[in-house]
Amino acid sequence: MAAIKAIVFDAYGTLFDVHTVVEKCEKYFPTKGRMISEIWRQKQLEYTWLRSLMGRYEDFWRVTEDALTFALKQLGLETTMDVRTDILHTYLSLKPYREVPDLLKQLSRAYTLAILSNGSPNMLHAVIQNAELSDCFSYVISVDERKTFKPSMEVYQLAPAKLGIPKEETLFVSSNSWDAAGAKVFGFQVCWLNRFHQTFDELDSRPDFIVNDLEELADHLT
Amino acid sequence: MAAIKAIVFDAYGTLFDVHTVVEKCEKYFPTKGRMISEIWRQKQLEYTWLRSLMGRYEDFWRVTEDALTFALKQLGLETTMDVRTDILHTYLSLKPYREVPDLLKQLSRAYTLAILSNGSPNMLHAVIQNAELSDCFSYVISVDERKTFKPSMEVYQLAPAKLGIPKEETLFVSSNSWDAAGAKVFGFQVCWLNRFHQTFDELDSRPDFIVNDLEELADHLT
Repeated sequence: MAAIKAIVFDAYGTLFDVHTVVEKCEKYFPTKGRMISEIWRQKQLEYTWLRSLMGRYEDFWRVTEDALTFALKQLGLETTMDVRTDILHTYLSLKPYREVPDLLKQLSRAYTLAILSNGSPNMLHAVIQNAELSDCFSYVISVDERKTFKPSMEVYQLAPAKLGIPKEETLFVSSNSWDAAGAKVFGFQVCWLNRFHQTFDELDSRPDFIVNDLEELADHLT
Repeated sequence: MAAIKAIVFDAYGTLFDVHTVVEKCEKYFPTKGRMISEIWRQKQLEYTWLRSLMGRYEDFWRVTEDALTFALKQLGLETTMDVRTDILHTYLSLKPYREVPDLLKQLSRAYTLAILSNGSPNMLHAVIQNAELSDCFSYVISVDERKTFKPSMEVYQLAPAKLGIPKEETLFVSSNSWDAAGAKVFGFQVCWLNRFHQTFDELDSRPDFIVNDLEELADHLT
């Protein structure tokens, strides 16, 4: 394996906890927060894949809103536009996982760090700024300029193109196993950040190594 | 709306009950049949979308096997190749829904009927023959010749190309709401066969009408 020069992170589910939304959902729909969040996230991903395949790209903010609409409809929860907007805006201030701020600061001293995410540029800017992590990243790359979503190969190609660092010298880190699988097919070195003892998807592709959090990643790299 | 000359059906979940597999799963893993079946189906669909996007097509038999492997792993169920193969082969004899045989026979007297499915040619041939429905269909079309899955537009294009009937004069029928949405974007007339009171996906596209079973479809058409 070539020495690693850059680390490219997925954002949602990897650095930022998408289930931060549960609390806000609970405020409006007591006891339903976790269920809303689970359906919302699943549909958000499905809509990125389906829209890409249908050739009907809309940005991640729109997709996220549509997925929330679906989740509330499926659960039979009546709501107003104001409530939906309030819940949706939680996405701009998702919390980073516990160890993320310290470890990103540490890793940024040794590597070029970047984010490569489905998120629209505005969404990524907001969530990174709200978590006070802007200084850690040399590049924040959105799929939006390719008008398709992960795991399209042309999306992964954005990272070497922007960073000027070959994919073989780049470590891609994602908690989403299908994203890790896609990144490996593309040709990155790949770490699957398996925070919740999940099962890796059966897509003919395996990560180079697996860690449970960024502390383990830093240990692995030294 | 133009008069309908042909009806093109999705197969799995629309005509054939994918949860026929529960019984066989129960034989090997008592009490787990429904859960295996749910995860299996979800992952089967996800893998069709992900492989299409990654440009890593494998046929539906392979995808179905991989999804079963994932489901058993995720549930921590140890198994042998023989058991997995036995469960997998249930896919060749999925049962049609209750009203399907009679209604297909009835509809085939007034319209050209076809299937357009993700299934590989062998899978489709077997499941149709086992259900004794071969005589109903003038065309059985597999996505396999395009090496991508629904809802890619090029897959829907196979139907007018084979049937020689314009998409505007073709009614596409699917129980999978994302498939109905894709077919509508393509330009078919579309009926969503909502067998289980589900929620239509938020993909900027609505079916022309909705029915609960094929009896309602026949009523609607007369």
